[in-house]
Formats: sequence, structure tokens, C-alpha cells
Amino acid sequence: MSQRSRVGIAGFTGYSGAELLRILKGHPDVDPVLLEHRAVSDSELPFGETAPRFPFTPEGLKDSGVELVFLATSLEVSIESAPMLLDAGLKCIDLSAAFRLRTLSNYTRWYNVEHPRLDLLTEAVYGLPEYFREVTKLARLVANPGCYPTAANLSLRPLIAEGVLDRAAGIVCDAKSGASGAGRKPLLKTHFCEVTENVSAYGVLYHRHVPEVLLTSDLQEYEFSFTAQLLPVHRGILETIYVRTMEPMSHSDLTAVYEKYYKDEPFVRIYPEGRLPDLSEVRLTNFCDIGMTVDPETRRVVIVAAIDNLVKGAAGQAVQNMNLLLGYDETSALL
Amino acid sequence: MSQRSRVGIAGFTGYSGAELLRILKGHPDVDPVLLEHRAVSDSELPFGETAPRFPFTPEGLKDSGVELVFLATSLEVSIESAPMLLDAGLKCIDLSAAFRLRTLSNYTRWYNVEHPRLDLLTEAVYGLPEYFREVTKLARLVANPGCYPTAANLSLRPLIAEGVLDRAAGIVCDAKSGASGAGRKPLLKTHFCEVTENVSAYGVLYHRHVPEVLLTSDLQEYEFSFTAQLLPVHRGILETIYVRTMEPMSHSDLTAVYEKYYKDEPFVRIYPEGRLPDLSEVRLTNFCDIGMTVDPETRRVVIVAAIDNLVKGAAGQAVQNMNLLLGYDETSALL
Amino acid sequence: MSQRSRVGIAGFTGYSGAELLRILKGHPDVDPVLLEHRAVSDSELPFGETAPRFPFTPEGLKDSGVELVFLATSLEVSIESAPMLLDAGLKCIDLSAAFRLRTLSNYTRWYNVEHPRLDLLTEAVYGLPEYFREVTKLARLVANPGCYPTAANLSLRPLIAEGVLDRAAGIVCDAKSGASGAGRKPLLKTHFCEVTENVSAYGVLYHRHVPEVLLTSDLQEYEFSFTAQLLPVHRGILETIYVRTMEPMSHSDLTAVYEKYYKDEPFVRIYPEGRLPDLSEVRLTNFCDIGMTVDPETRRVVIVAAIDNLVKGAAGQAVQNMNLLLGYDETSALL
Amino acid sequence: MSQRSRVGIAGFTGYSGAELLRILKGHPDVDPVLLEHRAVSDSELPFGETAPRFPFTPEGLKDSGVELVFLATSLEVSIESAPMLLDAGLKCIDLSAAFRLRTLSNYTRWYNVEHPRLDLLTEAVYGLPEYFREVTKLARLVANPGCYPTAANLSLRPLIAEGVLDRAAGIVCDAKSGASGAGRKPLLKTHFCEVTENVSAYGVLYHRHVPEVLLTSDLQEYEFSFTAQLLPVHRGILETIYVRTMEPMSHSDLTAVYEKYYKDEPFVRIYPEGRLPDLSEVRLTNFCDIGMTVDPETRRVVIVAAIDNLVKGAAGQAVQNMNLLLGYDETSALL
Repeated sequence: MSQRSRVGIAGFTGYSGAELLRILKGHPDVDPVLLEHRAVSDSELPFGETAPRFPFTPEGLKDSGVELVFLATSLEVSIESAPMLLDAGLKCIDLSAAFRLRTLSNYTRWYNVEHPRLDLLTEAVYGLPEYFREVTKLARLVANPGCYPTAANLSLRPLIAEGVLDRAAGIVCDAKSGASGAGRKPLLKTHFCEVTENVSAYGVLYHRHVPEVLLTSDLQEYEFSFTAQLLPVHRGILETIYVRTMEPMSHSDLTAVYEKYYKDEPFVRIYPEGRLPDLSEVRLTNFCDIGMTVDPETRRVVIVAAIDNLVKGAAGQAVQNMNLLLGYDETSALL
Repeated sequence: MSQRSRVGIAGFTGYSGAELLRILKGHPDVDPVLLEHRAVSDSELPFGETAPRFPFTPEGLKDSGVELVFLATSLEVSIESAPMLLDAGLKCIDLSAAFRLRTLSNYTRWYNVEHPRLDLLTEAVYGLPEYFREVTKLARLVANPGCYPTAANLSLRPLIAEGVLDRAAGIVCDAKSGASGAGRKPLLKTHFCEVTENVSAYGVLYHRHVPEVLLTSDLQEYEFSFTAQLLPVHRGILETIYVRTMEPMSHSDLTAVYEKYYKDEPFVRIYPEGRLPDLSEVRLTNFCDIGMTVDPETRRVVIVAAIDNLVKGAAGQAVQNMNLLLGYDETSALL
Repeated sequence: MSQRSRVGIAGFTGYSGAELLRILKGHPDVDPVLLEHRAVSDSELPFGETAPRFPFTPEGLKDSGVELVFLATSLEVSIESAPMLLDAGLKCIDLSAAFRLRTLSNYTRWYNVEHPRLDLLTEAVYGLPEYFREVTKLARLVANPGCYPTAANLSLRPLIAEGVLDRAAGIVCDAKSGASGAGRKPLLKTHFCEVTENVSAYGVLYHRHVPEVLLTSDLQEYEFSFTAQLLPVHRGILETIYVRTMEPMSHSDLTAVYEKYYKDEPFVRIYPEGRLPDLSEVRLTNFCDIGMTVDPETRRVVIVAAIDNLVKGAAGQAVQNMNLLLGYDETSALL
Repeated sequence: MSQRSRVGIAGFTGYSGAELLRILKGHPDVDPVLLEHRAVSDSELPFGETAPRFPFTPEGLKDSGVELVFLATSLEVSIESAPMLLDAGLKCIDLSAAFRLRTLSNYTRWYNVEHPRLDLLTEAVYGLPEYFREVTKLARLVANPGCYPTAANLSLRPLIAEGVLDRAAGIVCDAKSGASGAGRKPLLKTHFCEVTENVSAYGVLYHRHVPEVLLTSDLQEYEFSFTAQLLPVHRGILETIYVRTMEPMSHSDLTAVYEKYYKDEPFVRIYPEGRLPDLSEVRLTNFCDIGMTVDPETRRVVIVAAIDNLVKGAAGQAVQNMNLLLGYDETSALL
């Protein structure tokens, strides 16, 4: 059993960082500390926020007394900062993509970055607790999964592991995300007037999250067609996934496959026949909700998966990983 | 050449009817008349609206002097009203689904309605001008296409007609629509608080528009997987369509296929490589915009099509059909 | 000290009722029970909701074991139901306006209802804890304040009590509310397409909440001009209040007045000079945030007050009152 | 009578500039030309936009053949560019605040800019056609009014001119604007996630538009309390204005005052008793709609005025001014 801990948040002014703070303030055993890599004025914080602040430097970290740090920073800052944390003997949960992929070349191709630390790519644990819970408990460095890959992985891995999908049919994943997924930095594409009353497709077939999904879900042998679309909502991801089964399967057959993997999972919920999740069901929760419509005659299955991109898709899952790393109940602050 | 005409709108308080009025007021040769099938108070109309109003009865029609009537009414009202119009020697453009399908059994199955007029199902012209322009000019009764089928048809027909699609791969059409598509009648599903910050899937695989698409686009021999999703926007449809070609095709190969059909079409626009349409590009226009991302290596093509559901998906296309029926320039009031 | 309690929610499918359930599930000492006055199917509830359900009848109440009931029902249902609860020896917190006013004639005038229970109007405690905390602890029947009056009262009472306002200038309260304030029953005015991209004024000068504010805030001797406006947001109220002080007062003078009343209040926050609250600061919280801009030269003060209409404006304040009635810490489940 | 003209738009990628282009494309006698002060790629324009483009330089202007230029640019760029246009013998309609105020010191105070051209401040005509129509026809340089001042002026000037307002009571103008009013440049305050589900007050009492209103509406002798609030809408301004009359006046008394000024105005509409304008009534129109609620007993009047900030509040009014300058029908392209 673990005792009371201080944990740091770097990048706390961003949407994922602010969400981490919101969640951690409800945690019974943890005190969040804000780590500044630039001077932040009170007016940039929610009114009344009193969490202690320290510089995001080796000295600041020492003074802060934290034993674990969340990096809610850009990929570039995370690549630089993670080694500093590990060298200081601290655990690190990184919410960027900096340690999710396994080869240097993927970073050159998808992120236009020369990644200097193959050793850390090798060491980092991909923090999807439903599949990597035990290794996460032992990790120093956790690569917190991307939002799109979290929903895709949780929806697809059981079907792939059980071999029920018809490989010839391929997999289509039509994904839609709220604007907070694009970060808080002001960009034309996230200007209110560009987003409201609009929906736009981006990263069609060639999205950065595709290699992450392929690598982490054993999907490499399937043709995986992925499209990301920007929704006029603040938070939430809906993925509509089209697959074909090898044999005709009913809704209850598929439910049985999912239950084999998720029966005891606190944050994955499989919907009964006739009901599909939507964004409102998962808003501000750490749930990944999965529903299906099945046409046994043609062996087609449409899976609808919903998460809150800032919770199960980012900060909530990061806290879930923290609970594993520090020995708390995995659901603390999350139910 | 045609001369000045009066045309009637039944159902003018609904979203499609109001849009008809908006468009027709910009028409140089037509005067819109409002046909009331219940007493409508001024406060239900936009402020300052002065279009003449007549009862939607045989006498009212005669008094009004209209030669054509738009039915922006429910399927049930349209089934009842269209014969009255034809009997009175008037032309009719129906915006409901009442005359789009070709068999009585489809109405029993998809609309839970006993349709009494097989003769009119047979007579009605499916008013997609890009394909049925010439017969529309001669019609008495036009079945104005549904919003989803319009975008799907315009995106898929050239590819099917040219035989470039791999039938084995099937077609996935992931469609998203604004809330005006669900009509103006207050329902819980269109309550502001249910729609905002939400996206929900409905009619997965089994949507009423599926038979319409299949019947009208020669898609019967393809496996067509369709999902409709409700967006937190007032107007607009985006369809993301996943297909595979028989042979590897480049973006310009596909563009050539589309240009063969749409080169001279005023309302279909094919986007160049690297650009995809979104809802803002077509808002308040009669355009159907089509863009593509192509992966020749795997022969996958993702088509993104956008329309304004109230314009090209309803009232605009209806006015386009009116222009054909009455002998006006097809683009009048629409460009 | 109190022990574990069961409390009932009537009207749990409405927005206030659902919010009550959400808040109460986070309460350490209370178990919520759903009281059905019609059969409710599982699909009307959030997925996974397992709170026990009982009929909203004398027998159901007895079987349920509740000691207190929240009425998140219409005014009419509340007028009927409250006596049943009191007769059964239960405490009652009513979220409708049924017991907020003090005279029968006000109900005839503002709600078009013949109110049969003057005795209960007299008995009911107006549940604004910041002012009526002690009597609330002893009450059987609490009239939970309206959303607009809560923000107006908390903003104005200290200024009135201290006699700092210039009566000649009157008070202007320009109030804006999210659509959940209009209830969940589908109405044209809350249809998504009517609300989005719109703002509309209603109840200008003559709003039902005006008598409630006047009665409960000792404002009767001031000219109080109130306008309510419907915003395209789900939840939140912003009130912009224009007053003039008798003497020139600085921001810190006014802050001192507020601090005299709210220094120890857990749910009222006074902002420093140069900062004003907005809806995002109070979303999903029980805070009433108050900021000011002051022009001492002209003695003008503009007060900006923000609450979440479903929390401090309804369910959160109701739970605050429940905590008082049942002897729990007043902030339980609310911080 | 005037003949066909070419007119230029500088700043055409901004929201006002894009709106100018949209409106001018519907003008029967004018051809819009885009003036680039930086290289603009096709992808920054709406798809299919083919208006000719020229550099925004003396040579480019000469080559373009324009006789009038709209400056939809920043205040700084307008201060620099207007002299270039006038020197070239062109007429200029400036949509920024660069020539709206009449003293250099106001620019130092409100815009933090040293304005070098008192002569042009003196020469510029304030382009509110309802009041300055005749001088506008003769102008070289038109200062197009701000969005907030347009609605405030049109609402208040008749009441002030007729002397019906009680000066002792002051005037409260609670204004709300859509996010396009803040411009297209990406800023944190207009990030989708900051605006949606939010409303925030800014410029309380001390807004840049206050001196403009005071100067142009003869309001100097009234205490004018103004607050601007940012709404989660793309376009639209609603102003709720609280005044007191000297004598008791009924709705029809006030209507008579307004009709004296606006009876023949094509773009000002006075609403009948019981009806108030909202944003949807004026969306995409050049109307300023004005409604009132009156309480003769207390002499209070609440005025609700609505405009589309991009049309009557910017581009539409600018085209109205262009029609005056070039001798076209004042309503061309606007009704």
C-alpha cells in the first residue's frame, strides 16, 4: 500500500494539463503541484486555484517534493524533459506522442523530428491499462496513449485477438473529435468561427495516430482505413468502425468476445443490443463505451465507441496509470 | 421561354419550407405564395414576411393562381395532397419521401405506411437533375431526393457507371447531418441540450435512406454500409465514403471519371488533390462538393462529399427542379 | 451528527433531477433513490445507472426508506406532491416555484395557477443558505430558489443591507441563461436549430422571477429592471447588473461590503479588481462568482455574477439545503 | 446614373473582407477585385473563388482599374493605406476605426496609436447612411461605423433628437456580440474551446466603442453605461438598452418617434408591441431590427436591437455606403 504523494504537472495551462489538475484535486491520496516552464500569472489559472507552483527545473523538482511528473507538454518538450525526470529518480507519465512509437524512423516520418533516445522508446510502457497493466506497475516511463488509438484499441483488440474478423474486408475507422484534441494554442483551424457550424476531415488515411494504432493493437496484418474529423464540440471522440466477421455472429456472440476481455474492467462498458453510446454518455468520465449494430446475414458489424478525449483519451487515463505506478486503487479519482 | 409564375409552398413553417421561401424570394421570374393547411399567425413567420397566403384547399389553390406547388410536408400529408394537386392540373414537387421509392412494400417496411398510389410511384420522376434532367422537364410529379441520397448518389454514380469500383470491398458511407434534417417539430432528440456538445449515431446499417440510395444509384450489386450521425450544427451534411478501385487509380484518374459526368454541371464541384470540402464551403449554397484522398498502392479511396442539407439536400434542389419544370434557367436563384 | 440516509428524487428524468442524481452519487453519506411517477425505461437513464427505483406513491415512499424527497417536478406536480410527503413525515426540498412566493395572488398572476395551500407558503423556508441557513436546518419544507434570483440575491443583498445603493438610479439586471433553464420538455423555443447561433430576449421587465427577487432580497423599494435572455449554451447564467452607489466607492470599498457577508461562505467568491467571472469558471460547480467594474467618479458599478444554473441555480443548492436539513457538512458532495 | 465599376477589397481574408466579397458578388453593377498586401494562396480562399487579384500597391491599384477600395484591414494598416488611395484619386471606405473619431487624443487613449492625420479625421464622413446619407454621397473617405455603435446609434438617436429621454436616469446598453467581431486572427479568447458553452464580459464601462457612440449619437450629455459580452455565436449583435422617458409613453408613442426617422428607411425595422428581434431575424441581412417593451407607469423602456455584425455592422453597411458614393441604388445587393 502506498502513502500520500505529491505529483507534478508540467504543461498545466493546456487542456490536458488543466484536466489533470481537475481530476487530481478529487484524488484522496495525492497532492498536485504545478511545474512552470515559463512564468504563469494567476489570471491564466481558474479563479481560486491554489495548488503550489515550482519551476520546472531540477532544483524546482527537488524543492517540490514530487515523486512523479505528468508531462502534458508538446512532443518536443517531452523529449527534452523526460530524461531530466528519470535522471532525478522520478517517475514520468508523458501525455504527448514522444514515447509511444518504437522506432526512430516513425518520428522522422510522422512528426518531422529527430528523436535522440531509442533507449527510452524501448523502455517506455504503452499505458493502456486494460492490456498493459502489470508492466505499467513496474515502469519508470509511461507513454500515455493517444485519444484516437485508445478508442480504436479498446474496440478492436478483442476481435483481433480472438481472430473473428475477416481480414479480406479491411477495417474502416471513421473518427470524430472535439476541438480540445487540437490543443489550446490559438490556430486558425480552432478559431470559434471556423469550427462552429462546421465539420471537416483531416489526416484522411495518413494520420499520425495510424502507426500508433497499428503498432499497439496487433492490427498490422489488417488494412486499416482511418479518417479524423473535427467536430464543433469542446470534448469527446466518437469512432464508427466498420468490420466484417469471418462467420456470421450475433450481437450476443460479439458481446461474449468483449466480455472475455472487459468483464472486470472498470472503465470499459459494452452496450446491449439496440443501444449505442454517444458523447454525452462519457462526458467528463473515464469510460470507453462500446456499442454495436450487427447484420449476421452479411457478417457486417458497425462498432460505435465513445470516449471523452480529455479523460480516457488523455488525463483520466494518465491518472489511471499513476494509480498503477504509485500503488493506489486503479479507479481512485476516476469513478 | 417561360413567363412569370406563381408557385405555392405547403409546409412553409418547417425548415425546408422556410428555405424554399428564402430562395424563391431571390428568383427573378417567380412569386412565391404560402399555402396554409392550418391558420398560421404572423408571429410564426420571419418578421416582415409579406408573401400572399391562401388556404391549402382546392379553392385556395384556384384563388392563388399557382401553377406549381412544393410540398414541404410530412410523408403522410404529401401522400394525401399530391393527388389533389395533380387533379387540379398543377405540377408538384414533393420534398418528402412519399414518391421516392418504387414499390408499395418499401413504404410498409421503412415508413410503416400503407401507400395507396402505386401509379404515382411509377409516374413520379426522381428529381436528381444531374441524372434525370430531361425526364424532369416533362414531369407532373417530382420526388425531390433525400439529403443523404443526394450526396451519396452524386459521389458514387460516376464510379459505378464506369465500373471502377471493386465490388468485393463494399462501400462504407459514414454520413453526418445537422439537426435541421430531423425537422422542426420539437422532439427530445433535437432539444438544444441533447444536441450541443454531442454526436450520436442512428439508423446504423438500417436507415430509411438506404433503399433510396440503392434504388437510385445502381448500387444494388454493391454491399453498401451506411451510418447516419446527428451533428451539433444547424445545417450541413458531410459524407465520408470508403471504397476500393479495381485497378490502382491516381487522384487525376478519378478526377477524370468525375469530370466526364460533371464537367458542365453547375452545382457539382470536384476538388483538386490535397483539398477536401467541409460544411462551411457549401453553407447556403446549392453545391455538392466532392474531394478525395487516394492511396493507389492499396487502391483505397476516401471520398468526402459536402452539401447543405436544406439547399442541395432539399429546397435548393427543389427549386432547381422547378426551373426545369417551368422552363427557366436551371440555376436561377441558385448561384 | 447524522448517519447514512436515503433520499428520493422525483422528476429524475428532467435536467435538474438528473443533476441531483449526478451530485448525490458523489455524496459520502447519502444514497439516492429514484421515484417514478410514470414508468421509466432504462433507455431514458444514463447508461449503467443502477440507483434503486420506487413508485412515487405513499406506498412506494414507505418501501423506499427515504427520509427526504427532492421535487424536481413541475410547479403543478409539486403543489400536489409536497403535502403527500409532509403527511408521510418526510422532509421535502422543492426545486419548482411552488412554494417560493408568499401570497396566493402571486400564483394567480405569474403562474396562472390557483394555489390551494397558503399554510405551506407560510411555512416553507426560502432555501438560500447564505441568508437562511439556520431556519433551513429546522424546516420540513424548503423552497429551493430560482436560478436567476439566486445570482441576483447574492449580488445585491449585501449592497442593499448596507444601504450603499442610490435608490434614484434603480437597478438594471440583464440576465442570460443557458437552454437547460427552460426544461427538458421538447418545445420549439429550445429546438437546437432555434437556439444555436441565436440569442433572444424574453420576459423583459415582466418575468416570473421578478417577484421572487423582490420578495427575497429586500429590493421592494428599488426600481428593478430585469431582462432574461436565452443563450446558445447548455448550462450557465450570467447576470450583468448596473447600479449606482450613494457615495463614490472604490473596488476595495465594495469588496469590503461583500466580504462582510461572504468571508466565510464556501460558495460565494468575490473577484479581485480587473477580473470578471464567466460561465466557464463556474461550470459544474456550486459557486456563485461575483466581479465588479467600478467608476467612482460617476458612482457607477457594473456587477457580473455567474452561476451554473443547474448547480447553484438548482440541484447543487438543493443538496446544500439537504446537507443542512440532515445535519451533514454543508459542502458535502459540492466541493 | 452610374455605370459598371470595379471596386477593390484589401484585407479580403478577414471576416469582414470575406463578407464584402460575398455581398459584392451579388451586386448587379460592380465587379470586386482582391487586393493582396501579402501573397495569398488559393487554399485560403473559398473553393472556386475566381475574383481577380492584384498587389495592394500604387501600381497594382492602377492595373486593377478600381475606382473605390474597401479597407477591411487593421487600424494600423488603414491609417497607412488610406492616404495612398486618396493620393491615387480613389475613393475609400474604411471598415476599421482609423477615421471614426475626431480627435488625435482619442486614438492615443483608446487605441494606443499616434494618429498622424488630423486632416483626414476631419474630412472623413461617418458612414451611417440613415443620418449622413447626403454628405456620404460627396465623400472621398468614409469611416464605416463600428458594429456596436451602429445598433446603439440607430436605437437611440431618434429618442435623443426628440428629447424624450430622462437624462437623470442614464442609459444602460448591455451589448452581446458573436466571435467574428473579434477578428479572424487566432487568439486564445476566440479559441473554440474558450468560446463554446461560455459567455464573458469585456470592456465593461471602458470599451473603445463608447467614445464612438458618444461622438456620433449626440449622447454626450447622457450617462452612457456600456458593457460588451462575447457570445458563442459566429455572427450577430444583440443590444439590450434600458432607458427612462421624461413622460409616460406607450409603445405606440415610441413607435411614432421611430417612424418619424425610419419610415422610409429600407434597413431599419421597428417591431410591433409584443415582438422582439433576435439574432436569427437579421442573420445575413443588412437590417437593424428594433423592438421595445414599455412600462408607462414607471416610464421605463427596454429596447432590444439586433444586427448581423458582419453585415449592417460592417460589410453590408460598407456596401450601402459604396452604393451612395458611386451613385447606385442604395439597396443594391442588400435586399
